[in-house]
Amino acid sequence: MENRKIVVIGGSAAGAKAAARARRLDPQAEITIIQKSPDLSMASCGYPYYVGGTFGERSQLLATPTGVVRDPQFFQKTKNIRAITETECVRIDRDNKQVACRNLQSGDEFVESYDKLVLATGASANLLPIAGRELIGVTTFLTMQDTDFLHDRSVSGEVKRAVVIGGGLIGVEACEALRSRGIEVTLVELEKQVLTFLDLQLGMLVGNHMRSKGVELRTGMKLERFVGDDGKLTGVQLANGETLECQLAVMATGVRPNVEIAAAAGLEIGNLGGLAVNASMQTSDPDIYAAGDCVECTHLLTGKKTYAPMGDLANLQGRVVGENVVEGNVATFPGTIQTVICKVFDFGAGATGLSERTARAQGMTDIETVVNASPDKPGFMGAKLLISKLLVEKSTGRILGYQCVGSGDVSRQLATAAMAVRGKLTLAELCCADLPYAPPYSLAIDHFIASAHIMDNKLKGRLKTITAEEVYARIEAGNPPCFIDGRGPDEHEVLRLGIGEKYIPLGMIRNVLADLPQDKATEIVCFCKISLRGYELARILEGYGYTNVKVMEGGIMAWPFSRER
Amino acid sequence: MENRKIVVIGGSAAGAKAAARARRLDPQAEITIIQKSPDLSMASCGYPYYVGGTFGERSQLLATPTGVVRDPQFFQKTKNIRAITETECVRIDRDNKQVACRNLQSGDEFVESYDKLVLATGASANLLPIAGRELIGVTTFLTMQDTDFLHDRSVSGEVKRAVVIGGGLIGVEACEALRSRGIEVTLVELEKQVLTFLDLQLGMLVGNHMRSKGVELRTGMKLERFVGDDGKLTGVQLANGETLECQLAVMATGVRPNVEIAAAAGLEIGNLGGLAVNASMQTSDPDIYAAGDCVECTHLLTGKKTYAPMGDLANLQGRVVGENVVEGNVATFPGTIQTVICKVFDFGAGATGLSERTARAQGMTDIETVVNASPDKPGFMGAKLLISKLLVEKSTGRILGYQCVGSGDVSRQLATAAMAVRGKLTLAELCCADLPYAPPYSLAIDHFIASAHIMDNKLKGRLKTITAEEVYARIEAGNPPCFIDGRGPDEHEVLRLGIGEKYIPLGMIRNVLADLPQDKATEIVCFCKISLRGYELARILEGYGYTNVKVMEGGIMAWPFSRER
Repeated sequence: MENRKIVVIGGSAAGAKAAARARRLDPQAEITIIQKSPDLSMASCGYPYYVGGTFGERSQLLATPTGVVRDPQFFQKTKNIRAITETECVRIDRDNKQVACRNLQSGDEFVESYDKLVLATGASANLLPIAGRELIGVTTFLTMQDTDFLHDRSVSGEVKRAVVIGGGLIGVEACEALRSRGIEVTLVELEKQVLTFLDLQLGMLVGNHMRSKGVELRTGMKLERFVGDDGKLTGVQLANGETLECQLAVMATGVRPNVEIAAAAGLEIGNLGGLAVNASMQTSDPDIYAAGDCVECTHLLTGKKTYAPMGDLANLQGRVVGENVVEGNVATFPGTIQTVICKVFDFGAGATGLSERTARAQGMTDIETVVNASPDKPGFMGAKLLISKLLVEKSTGRILGYQCVGSGDVSRQLATAAMAVRGKLTLAELCCADLPYAPPYSLAIDHFIASAHIMDNKLKGRLKTITAEEVYARIEAGNPPCFIDGRGPDEHEVLRLGIGEKYIPLGMIRNVLADLPQDKATEIVCFCKISLRGYELARILEGYGYTNVKVMEGGIMAWPFSRER
Repeated sequence: MENRKIVVIGGSAAGAKAAARARRLDPQAEITIIQKSPDLSMASCGYPYYVGGTFGERSQLLATPTGVVRDPQFFQKTKNIRAITETECVRIDRDNKQVACRNLQSGDEFVESYDKLVLATGASANLLPIAGRELIGVTTFLTMQDTDFLHDRSVSGEVKRAVVIGGGLIGVEACEALRSRGIEVTLVELEKQVLTFLDLQLGMLVGNHMRSKGVELRTGMKLERFVGDDGKLTGVQLANGETLECQLAVMATGVRPNVEIAAAAGLEIGNLGGLAVNASMQTSDPDIYAAGDCVECTHLLTGKKTYAPMGDLANLQGRVVGENVVEGNVATFPGTIQTVICKVFDFGAGATGLSERTARAQGMTDIETVVNASPDKPGFMGAKLLISKLLVEKSTGRILGYQCVGSGDVSRQLATAAMAVRGKLTLAELCCADLPYAPPYSLAIDHFIASAHIMDNKLKGRLKTITAEEVYARIEAGNPPCFIDGRGPDEHEVLRLGIGEKYIPLGMIRNVLADLPQDKATEIVCFCKISLRGYELARILEGYGYTNVKVMEGGIMAWPFSRER
């Protein structure tokens, strides 16, 4: 029998993983990677940290843990895989099971035959359909070449001001990278918040943190055009007519799957624009598989297709494809719960499962949310803050989503929640979860479990809450309730909302009942720094017969709007 | 109707939590805490960090996050709970629903009536049944008083050498605390390893790390007696006759539940010596509940009772009790998966679910394990090492246990695994798990998922492995296989096992086939730093017809025995 011929189009995450996996399972197969870029196996999620100066050696983005650069020679020697770089696939001939390729340097074309073809063609950055984007100084931030450009400009000292357009993952990471190089940065975002995988409140808190680090935020703002002089970028003009001077502009306005050659070959494209694959990562042609940023995959909570161009999923999908092209469809990639995390200066920010926005957009109404703010560890171990939002299905108690931001250990929170979502755990199970506890790592009642406890209280009617967003809307509407801040006087001095709140330290409440509204039906909203004392206050007031007492979820630490101090 | 009377015996973790929870649900109840110690709500898991000097203020162990000490006045003012300290419960009169109490200062006795009684009597430290334990300088490490003693001795400058007896959680934490104060520390442990919630290999790795931090380890060693002079400790004598000079000795030889008054009142005691409770945390008397270190609870994986005196479980159980004493048995604590973590100098170390030892002791045979060593993050983000052991049920693929040690982010690993065990996730699900990935937090394929991938390969027969323990036994038996270390020459210089291995860098293997054993059935064991290249080597050798090739799990980084460099 002849050796199996496997051709992989794309040699970044998914393609390289599929090829390596196939090699391990079939030592005799002829495996070829066709890679458009000069580089292979780039750690593309690490690009912002190279631009920002977390590390200095470009080669670290391309090397194994022992420092060997993963070039064609490496692939040949250690994996017996032929990797052809700076070469693109221009056509798939499904009838003859061949791909036509073109060397980007020489222009030479050649043909490769395959028994199994793997498409790992990745994604391209969306370009804004506005004038001036050809100016020198305007770039996207997706490829190694973009990265080299941004790195060179950042260290050149010639860029004083930069504008980043788009407040998604890449835009936010770009802001941090450029700020780390001492560049003044303005972020322009169409939505009211950054990181729209977060709901508004948490997204605003991340935005506030970015402001505290010197990023100027222009949310709810559209870009009109890039402005230049002599072919060079000199500024960006906003939709309101204002022009922001800058020498560098980064378009971080999302990506779209590269499916042109697949579509031209008649492979099925999904409604979201990505390649359609089944759970075996097989396209509509059984001899062609696909993985990574070019495919759509199933959202495990909605059952619908979603587009999730994430580095970890690309690797996991690549592994499945590598297995299936050798052994038949033995492995599956069931789908994603869209877990995401990013570092934003001193904050971590991430989500898993559904946000409230996504759930409501799906027409889900049997849901409840709660916002919780608390330290990640005991104060004596150097506690840092976590602010999270938990989403559950009311009728079943099943956890559907979790978001978390803050300077505390967000990574552990999200890993915990991702597994809880994947395991379809219910609130009752989360309320008694047995998580790793020791003071260097968490509170005795971990933040995640505490969030479940608050939700449990809320669903059982023991806790009436109001969100910061609802409070703000009430104030804006000129109809504020009676606010009570349960913290001590020293705390008010440092930090306060200034929304007309009364200051009644928790320990004093039983002494000042006469000062409270005498109408027991008055709406009272209690809070404190994180609303734990606010909760105690509320229970005490209820004990004294007040019938309309609410706790503001997350307290002052989760308040995303402007405040007095 | 008269107000409900709730009496809680014990005011540390479980008792204080139960009382506070009951108060929130019933603002009118009369709630009394009877506490033996002078302090309330002590953060007892933080004791080692006070002794070691992580923080300086004793009051931080007793204070709320805003710095208010939780004394009787605090409980009265903020929670309307009467807390009586330095008072012990001496008798439960179930017929009359009364407890008899005695003030430890005055000796005065008094009686409290209850509608519902909560027993949160905690645990006591086991004392070694050997001579000399009354000497000044010999202590346990469980109470605030022990902590004060250890703190005072540690900062006094008079203690040059200390001996810790028992290498469990408390013993290991005591070693670190004392070393942090510049004291020479020897740890004496009866078993062959520290932290017996870990299997031998990982426990030995923790031991090696402790040695590297200057702790002298005497494993497999029994203590004979404490030696003193003029009533003061001067040393400990070991079973081998040797005497270790020391001015301080810490008995950290486990704890036992305090059940004397419960037993005297005829409440059912379990086979493990703890109070027997149902899932509602109710004792054999329906009006008496119990929580915390005095109870036994259900192990969710074995279905059997276990004794798990952990601070987090005490709080979770206390919450359930607080709810049930007010509202009837509405809440349950289903049990534990025995998740545990501790800091050991620069290592984290922990486990969740079953260890191989525990599983085998339960008679389980349908199990498979794998040891994995890999970085927690990309090298360019400052990777640190993780070494873990995964345990699954072979027939179902269900994850039964996970242990992890190392300088990397062990906390996230264990939180992930704890939820996976709790959610009864299978290997197939873990192989495609959607965890939070970004370079500051993890590898694209997280260490936990990589462990699942290795297990998957192993179970599918694609990877034949041998553990370090098996390799060592083969060497000891004088029957070593052919060892191949697949690392580069520069790496051998820095670190090597010296077990007769051949050095064949992965990229060279295809060139040196002639130097390998010509008998294709020869047993060959491949490894490298973490055995990833070892795996590649093995697949290549199999491709060349070798039929008995194995990979040493975890490679050199997981090798717990002595080595050449």
